[in-house]
Amino acid sequence: MTEFELIHHLTRTLPGNQSVVTGSGDDCAVLDLGIPDRLVLFKTDAVVEGVHFTSQTPPSQIGHKALARCLSDIAAMAGTPVAALITLGLPPKFDVQKLEMLYEGMNRLASSHDVAIVGGETTTNPERLLVSIALLGTVSRGKAILRSGAKPGDAIFVSGELGGSLAGRHLEFEPRLLEARWLAEHFTIHSMIDLSDGLAGDLRHILKASHIGAELLSSAIPISREARVSAKAESSAKPPLLAALTDGEDFELLFTVRSRDAVGVLDGWKKQFPKVRLSCIGKITAGEGICLRDKQGLRPLSAHGYVHFS
Amino acid sequence: MTEFELIHHLTRTLPGNQSVVTGSGDDCAVLDLGIPDRLVLFKTDAVVEGVHFTSQTPPSQIGHKALARCLSDIAAMAGTPVAALITLGLPPKFDVQKLEMLYEGMNRLASSHDVAIVGGETTTNPERLLVSIALLGTVSRGKAILRSGAKPGDAIFVSGELGGSLAGRHLEFEPRLLEARWLAEHFTIHSMIDLSDGLAGDLRHILKASHIGAELLSSAIPISREARVSAKAESSAKPPLLAALTDGEDFELLFTVRSRDAVGVLDGWKKQFPKVRLSCIGKITAGEGICLRDKQGLRPLSAHGYVHFS
Repeated sequence: MTEFELIHHLTRTLPGNQSVVTGSGDDCAVLDLGIPDRLVLFKTDAVVEGVHFTSQTPPSQIGHKALARCLSDIAAMAGTPVAALITLGLPPKFDVQKLEMLYEGMNRLASSHDVAIVGGETTTNPERLLVSIALLGTVSRGKAILRSGAKPGDAIFVSGELGGSLAGRHLEFEPRLLEARWLAEHFTIHSMIDLSDGLAGDLRHILKASHIGAELLSSAIPISREARVSAKAESSAKPPLLAALTDGEDFELLFTVRSRDAVGVLDGWKKQFPKVRLSCIGKITAGEGICLRDKQGLRPLSAHGYVHFS
Repeated sequence: MTEFELIHHLTRTLPGNQSVVTGSGDDCAVLDLGIPDRLVLFKTDAVVEGVHFTSQTPPSQIGHKALARCLSDIAAMAGTPVAALITLGLPPKFDVQKLEMLYEGMNRLASSHDVAIVGGETTTNPERLLVSIALLGTVSRGKAILRSGAKPGDAIFVSGELGGSLAGRHLEFEPRLLEARWLAEHFTIHSMIDLSDGLAGDLRHILKASHIGAELLSSAIPISREARVSAKAESSAKPPLLAALTDGEDFELLFTVRSRDAVGVLDGWKKQFPKVRLSCIGKITAGEGICLRDKQGLRPLSAHGYVHFS
C-alpha cells in the first residue's frame, strides 16, 4: 500500500461536524468557526531526521524547512497564516544550542510572515529528531482555492523552476504566500496545489480531485539549474526534464485558470514578482491522465512520471 | 536542564502577533480570530511508543489516549473542542490493521465529543510509532480559564481519584470536558489545569503562574484504588499518598474558586456528576510553595512531591 492509498483508506470514515467546509484531501482543512468574513485553514506537517534532513543539516535550516512546508500549504489555498504550535520529538541529551538555532530559523521565517508561535510540546523520540508543526490560518470566504476546481481548457501554470531541490533549495525555499494571495485577489484561480511530491504527482492530485486530464508542453516546463547541472555531472542522474517532472520538494505553486485569463496572469505576475519565474506549461483536457507534447508528438506520462525518452 | 526549563528557555522570545491572547505557558494557546463571541483554543500533543505506551498496547487505546490527552487540555480551559488533525510517524511496514484500530479508538472518542477529524499527515519514524495530534477548540469570550487567576484564600478542588494511572487508566480516561464547561458556566473559576504531571507538579504550575502558594490537607486528597493496591502488593511501590501527589497522567481537573463558593460547587457537582468524585483538598495561601497538613502538623512539600513520611 502506498502512502496515498493508506491515507485514502484511513480517511474514508472520519467523524465530521458542522464546522467542516473541507476535510482531509486538500492542502489544508477548511473550517467555518463563525468569523463573519473568513474561514479557518488548519494544517500539520512533520519533518524527521534521516528522511527530510540529515544529522548534518544546520539546525536553523531544519527549523526553516519545517515551518516553510506548512506555510506552503496555506499558500496553496491562498490563505494567510496566523499561528503555529511546534511539537519536538527529541533524542535524550539533545544539544540545547542546536535547539536554539532550530528555533531561530523557525522564528525568523514566522516573523517575516507575521506568524505567531504560540507554544507546543516536547516529547522523547529516542533515535532521531522529529519536528511536527501545526498551523492555523485564515482565508476570505469564497477565496479558498481547492484542488477540485480545474476545468477542461484551463491553462496550467507553475511558479519557479523545478527539479533538483534536494541539492539545497528544499532547506531554504520561500513559501509563495504573497504570490498566492495576489493571484486570488486579482484572478479567478480554478485550482491550486503546492508542489511537494513533484510536478507530475501533484498535478495528478488536481486531476483526480477535478476528474479531468492534462496535456503538458515539454519545452515549457521550467527546469532548475540544479537539475541540469546534476544531469551533466552524474551519468546516473535523471535527465533534467524527468527531474523537473518527478523530483519532490519544489514547494512551488501549481494552478489553473481559464485560458482567456492566461495572458493577464503572466503580464500581471511579471510586474508584481519580477524575480520569480512563472510558466504556462500546458492545458487541462477532458480526458484522463497526463500527456506530454514534444517534437515526437503527444505521449502519455506513466504513473511515476517516467516517459520513454527516445 | 529539565523539560520545563528547556521549554521556558526556548519560549522566551517567540514571535507574536495581534491574534495572540495567551501564547505558550498555559494548557492551550488562546487566539482572537475575530469570531464575535468566542476565542479559539489551539493545542498539540504527541504520544510515542516506549514512552507513553508500549508495543503491546492495543492500538485502539493508543488512538484514544492520544486524542484524550489533547481534549483534556481543552477541558482545562473550559473550552469546546472542534476539529483535530492527526500526524502519524510510522515505522516501515506498519500493520494497516493496527492503524485502522488506532483510528477506531480515536474516531470513537472524537464522535462522542462532536470533534471532526479533518485530515493530517503520515511520515516515516523508523524505530517507533509516534502520534501527534493538533486540536482546535473554542471558548466563550471571557470564559477561558487560565492557570494564572488563583488568589489567596481560594479553595482548591480536584476531580476523580489520583495516582496509579499507569496501571491502565491512562489509556482509557474520559477527558473532563462536560465537567469543565459546567463549572465555567455556573461558577467563577479562578484557575484550572488538567493533571498530567501529577497533583504536586501541576499545582505548582498554577502557583507559579499566579504567584502564590498552597496548603493541602493530607486526608482530603483522593487516592485511587490502584495506588492503594499497588502499595500493598509491592514493597518498593510508592506509599499511596505519595502516588496521589506525584504520579502523572491522571488527567483530572485541578481548579480553584473563592472559598465562599466552595460548598455550592460541591453540592452542584454532586447533583450534576454523581459518578465523578470531587474533593476540596486545601486552600491557596499568600506564601510560596506547597505545604501539606496532616496529624503531625504543617510541612513543606519538596520539589518532587516527596515528603518525609515519619
